[in-house]
Amino acid sequence: MFDYRPVGYVIGLLVAALGAVMLLPMLADLISGNEHWFVFLVSSLVTIFVGGLIALACQNGVEAGLTIRQTFILTTGVWVMLPVFGAIPFVLGETQASYTDAFFEAMSGLTTTGSTVFTGLDDLPEGLLLWRGLMQWLGGIGIIVVAMVFLPELRVGGMQIFRSEAFDTFGKILPRAGQIASQISVIYFLLTAACALVYGSLGMAPLDAVTHAMTTIATGGFSNYDASFGGFHAGVEYAAAAFMILAGLPFVRYVQMVAGSWNAPLRDPQVRAFVGIVATAALLMALWQVSQSGRDWEPAIRKSLFNVASIITGTGYASEDYMLWGAFPVTLFFFVGLVGGCAGSTACSVKVFRYQLLFGAIMTQVKALHSPRGMFPLRYDGRTVSEDVLSSVMSFFVMFMVTLGALSAALALTGLDFITSVSGAGAALGNIGPGLGPIIGPAGNFGELNTTAKWLLSIGMLIGRLELLVVFAIFTVNFWRR
Amino acid sequence: MFDYRPVGYVIGLLVAALGAVMLLPMLADLISGNEHWFVFLVSSLVTIFVGGLIALACQNGVEAGLTIRQTFILTTGVWVMLPVFGAIPFVLGETQASYTDAFFEAMSGLTTTGSTVFTGLDDLPEGLLLWRGLMQWLGGIGIIVVAMVFLPELRVGGMQIFRSEAFDTFGKILPRAGQIASQISVIYFLLTAACALVYGSLGMAPLDAVTHAMTTIATGGFSNYDASFGGFHAGVEYAAAAFMILAGLPFVRYVQMVAGSWNAPLRDPQVRAFVGIVATAALLMALWQVSQSGRDWEPAIRKSLFNVASIITGTGYASEDYMLWGAFPVTLFFFVGLVGGCAGSTACSVKVFRYQLLFGAIMTQVKALHSPRGMFPLRYDGRTVSEDVLSSVMSFFVMFMVTLGALSAALALTGLDFITSVSGAGAALGNIGPGLGPIIGPAGNFGELNTTAKWLLSIGMLIGRLELLVVFAIFTVNFWRR
Ligand SMILES: [K+]
Ligand SMILES: [K+]
Repeated sequence: MFDYRPVGYVIGLLVAALGAVMLLPMLADLISGNEHWFVFLVSSLVTIFVGGLIALACQNGVEAGLTIRQTFILTTGVWVMLPVFGAIPFVLGETQASYTDAFFEAMSGLTTTGSTVFTGLDDLPEGLLLWRGLMQWLGGIGIIVVAMVFLPELRVGGMQIFRSEAFDTFGKILPRAGQIASQISVIYFLLTAACALVYGSLGMAPLDAVTHAMTTIATGGFSNYDASFGGFHAGVEYAAAAFMILAGLPFVRYVQMVAGSWNAPLRDPQVRAFVGIVATAALLMALWQVSQSGRDWEPAIRKSLFNVASIITGTGYASEDYMLWGAFPVTLFFFVGLVGGCAGSTACSVKVFRYQLLFGAIMTQVKALHSPRGMFPLRYDGRTVSEDVLSSVMSFFVMFMVTLGALSAALALTGLDFITSVSGAGAALGNIGPGLGPIIGPAGNFGELNTTAKWLLSIGMLIGRLELLVVFAIFTVNFWRR
Repeated sequence: MFDYRPVGYVIGLLVAALGAVMLLPMLADLISGNEHWFVFLVSSLVTIFVGGLIALACQNGVEAGLTIRQTFILTTGVWVMLPVFGAIPFVLGETQASYTDAFFEAMSGLTTTGSTVFTGLDDLPEGLLLWRGLMQWLGGIGIIVVAMVFLPELRVGGMQIFRSEAFDTFGKILPRAGQIASQISVIYFLLTAACALVYGSLGMAPLDAVTHAMTTIATGGFSNYDASFGGFHAGVEYAAAAFMILAGLPFVRYVQMVAGSWNAPLRDPQVRAFVGIVATAALLMALWQVSQSGRDWEPAIRKSLFNVASIITGTGYASEDYMLWGAFPVTLFFFVGLVGGCAGSTACSVKVFRYQLLFGAIMTQVKALHSPRGMFPLRYDGRTVSEDVLSSVMSFFVMFMVTLGALSAALALTGLDFITSVSGAGAALGNIGPGLGPIIGPAGNFGELNTTAKWLLSIGMLIGRLELLVVFAIFTVNFWRR
């Protein structure tokens, strides 16, 4: 008999905590003097009450550790249950959303995807805007902790699939995981504060500065404006690009940096490749714009850098409609989105280190062309990569592509056109946010999609955010039998 | 010092042989009584002369065996040099093509891709139509022989990457490779003859029956009509679907069948999966058409079966413009094209057995969820799959996707739109033929593309046909140093 109580206990506590956080947007509404604060009071009370009940009901089942199955169900359960309650303010509040739309928005927030179904953001009450930002901010730190504490935990239990995700973040020099998690939370908070200060000093209003700082560092991409970053001036674009790139680096390197090894990020091959890819892609797109449409160098470089940083980290801000830049930038954006940021950051998608390992593996195979009897162990960041890690990475890549295909086909089945289906599936799985094409592109919105498509995309965001954990587990019926 | 002479000798002989084959379309033109025969006489003489010169010049360097590097350069060289000469009739003949167009058409023929730059096919001289069919037919048998004789040869030399391609076709029960190759050629000829007889009995004119039989069994897809199979009646569509599916099965199974084990194809897991996928996809599309556009069951099933068989085997015939069927069929066609046929057939793309191995590998990883210390060797068709084979398959898949991305971006850079770039890259790499969208879709044509795009697509066809051999080799500079 499977014991759901330890899982229920933690989920209940987290739901109650989410309810408590809802008091912040209530405060924002109170300070701004709009009557909307009542929505958050009700939502908060309901959420705290239900979460507390769940926790209490499960309290007597709490033991020392979690089994693999419990850990899996906990991880998935958190990202299913939090959006269930996070959606409430959108239903009760001024958005008057259907539950489908509200759940989509909350899932998009907590998975840091950043696709939105709402238009008229500019006129929403302060509380709702802050709530969108807060959900992304919580989702961002949540996923770093899961990637650093839970996924390795699952490895210990045998889910070696995620050893690859963890091996880069756990060197011998580092102390226990719990300690790292709290250190990372401090870094996360400080980076967000720094970002908010910079945004504020560049002229953003306080609420905008805080909300956008939260969605920048979470690489979430929710904005308080329909035009996203289109309404801000050049300085803000440069600052946002810089902070998005910083948010795409492995946070553990910042911890090491603060601990005295100041060049820790620079020594990380993942960081070097990531920065190189951003610079190359931005330069190519700037060149394209200057040569094709005769744009000046400054705006060309700025717009390219901002939008490349936004897509590669999966933030999903847009500072203009890059669908209009032409076919080459659009195609490049599609593939840049499939690259993603660094492991151990808030960025999602396939991630740079997986490509590095895959290319490394291919290179060792090619080396064997000459010396059939020779041994060429794959090394990464100074360590030998085991066959096991490599198979896991390759499986991830294959499953990612197959899930992308299946989700695209399912979306097309609901009646979406080809480019909306394929890019929507990619934007959801990669937790990027905007897709391509007129409907869900940077100038578009997910509100017009049909209900089935919204639920499919919500599932896609969940699958992508949990590194395909869900798919891997569903793949085996055995998993549920024992 | 690298010895190019054995390579040059074989290539010279093959070029000369191609020149000799050009006498067949000359005969066709002579029989039809059109003056166009002179084009083939000139082309043939030039080709035989140059090929013969190359062979003679290299004759004194022929030794017993080929090194790995020589084998690689030979394989690539054949598929580069034959189109160089195969293009001549298109330049000299009634098509009056630019060399770019002519080379594209010849490469498309010899790689069995089947993309065409020509319109007004219906009015072309008989010789040119036969020549297009003949190139595909030769390319088809050529690639089976390469896959069964050369790729394993490269494995022996250390290129274990292609062991995976070969292991399914070389059981212990089978005699030497040379013998298999000749047996397969007999099967190939008989299947083509049977197909031609069926087409003829269903009312096709003799030249049409022969040409279409050749491009069916080669899964090449060149047709003598701009409307492809759109002008033929229902019986022809069913017959073509059946022969395309037969051409997508591993030819070695037919050899075994003729040798007495009549159920050899049925026992092959690759065959079972392939037939299952075709049936499922065709049924889904028929259901879609019946439910969405109220089509009758008979035409819905026929059109679905024909076009699914055409895309999955990479033949590329079209019997109507399936771009008009709606978003779901279009998206499904895109992904079905990435599945491909069986290894050891004339079909290309990723191929069914690679997906089977990849899913098998993922399943063994998931099994390890429960029993971290357990061993779960991957088995396929009754044999244990080595880690080595599995890494090769995974590398293939990854390189295929990365090459697809790079080629798409390069095509977009030449100014093609997103859907043309991505589907064109897929159609070339998968040797399928038609892409998606209004320009290169089933109702379109490659003639309007810019010159750079045509050369890029030609390179893509070559890379796809040789199972990414070219990419793997270029990937290492070492390869060329020694
Ligand atoms: K995002
Ligand atoms: K083809």
